[in-house]
Amino acid sequence: MKIIIVGANGTMGKYLASAFEKEHEIIRVANKHGDFHVDITSTSSIENLFKQVGSFDALISTAGPTYVGPWKNLTDKEFRKGVEGKMMGQINLVLIGQHYINPKGSFTLISGALTHDPQLNFANASAANGAVEGFVRAAAIELGNGIRINAVSPTVIENSPQYFPYFPGDIPVTMQQLEYGFRKSIFGANTGQIIKPY
Amino acid sequence: MKIIIVGANGTMGKYLASAFEKEHEIIRVANKHGDFHVDITSTSSIENLFKQVGSFDALISTAGPTYVGPWKNLTDKEFRKGVEGKMMGQINLVLIGQHYINPKGSFTLISGALTHDPQLNFANASAANGAVEGFVRAAAIELGNGIRINAVSPTVIENSPQYFPYFPGDIPVTMQQLEYGFRKSIFGANTGQIIKPY
Repeated sequence: MKIIIVGANGTMGKYLASAFEKEHEIIRVANKHGDFHVDITSTSSIENLFKQVGSFDALISTAGPTYVGPWKNLTDKEFRKGVEGKMMGQINLVLIGQHYINPKGSFTLISGALTHDPQLNFANASAANGAVEGFVRAAAIELGNGIRINAVSPTVIENSPQYFPYFPGDIPVTMQQLEYGFRKSIFGANTGQIIKPY
Repeated sequence: MKIIIVGANGTMGKYLASAFEKEHEIIRVANKHGDFHVDITSTSSIENLFKQVGSFDALISTAGPTYVGPWKNLTDKEFRKGVEGKMMGQINLVLIGQHYINPKGSFTLISGALTHDPQLNFANASAANGAVEGFVRAAAIELGNGIRINAVSPTVIENSPQYFPYFPGDIPVTMQQLEYGFRKSIFGANTGQIIKPY
């Protein structure tokens, strides 16, 4: 299976790439590293990515820039980081990528527990996640040719301890649990699901 | 209680204004009609609205422009209608309005069942709703001075029969049920809730 990983240079992307490369062809995509580069805030950059990569069987996105910081500093300007990044960046990967993906292929986006379980400083991510999840459910009934779409929604992940203080009492999701979440989406048959890998 | 209704010239806004005006001071706000005008896609227009209206006790938003149409026509460009309208328009009403609302005041935004129950042609609304709902839960734990925030999430409403064909099998929410949803948010004590008035 030819699998594109967008966000391949991040904590999650690196782990998933090395987990899946044993059995699959992995195309590593990141902003500045990897096999191909993409700026997910630019539709022309995304279009260009797919033109270069050509057809594929699955796309994993772990790319989720959002504004993290005090509520008192949160204005429209800061909010745009998550709108253009984690939300529209991922949505445009699907809206554009659907024209390049093989029949019966799959998209798997990243959301997160913040959708339903907010934490201080992360309102931008809660909104972006909610948008991604609403989109995933809607896209699942629209996409043709047996193409599926799901999101994986972890809590804080074990390999990002710098975030632990922001998620008091949240049991970190292990990297293996995260991998299983993506496995369920890519190799299973479900669509329109928000997969909680814990 | 001084209640601002944004979207006061729409189907929902008109009904709610006439329902609440018997007991409260209602400030009707709309794009082109009402006591005050606002373009919710412009932060300066929103800021200007609150400067004119001054302090208030509750804000109701029923303003939710989104792109409705075939999936095959849905690109980043069409998606922006819901991003700027129902999503960021409502979010900015809160981010800016929090500096004008009275202590213990409330914001009540509009989302909709499409968040979890998608329909063909409405992927933009599903995403915008999801964003609004994620934001509402996050804002509820951030807002100070006892200020509350909720969203009301109806299915198709009885006074909009033109939408019935798009929502097969959905039992329309009556205007009175919708009113009760907003009553629960404004006059109750809950915060961070997505109120389903059915």
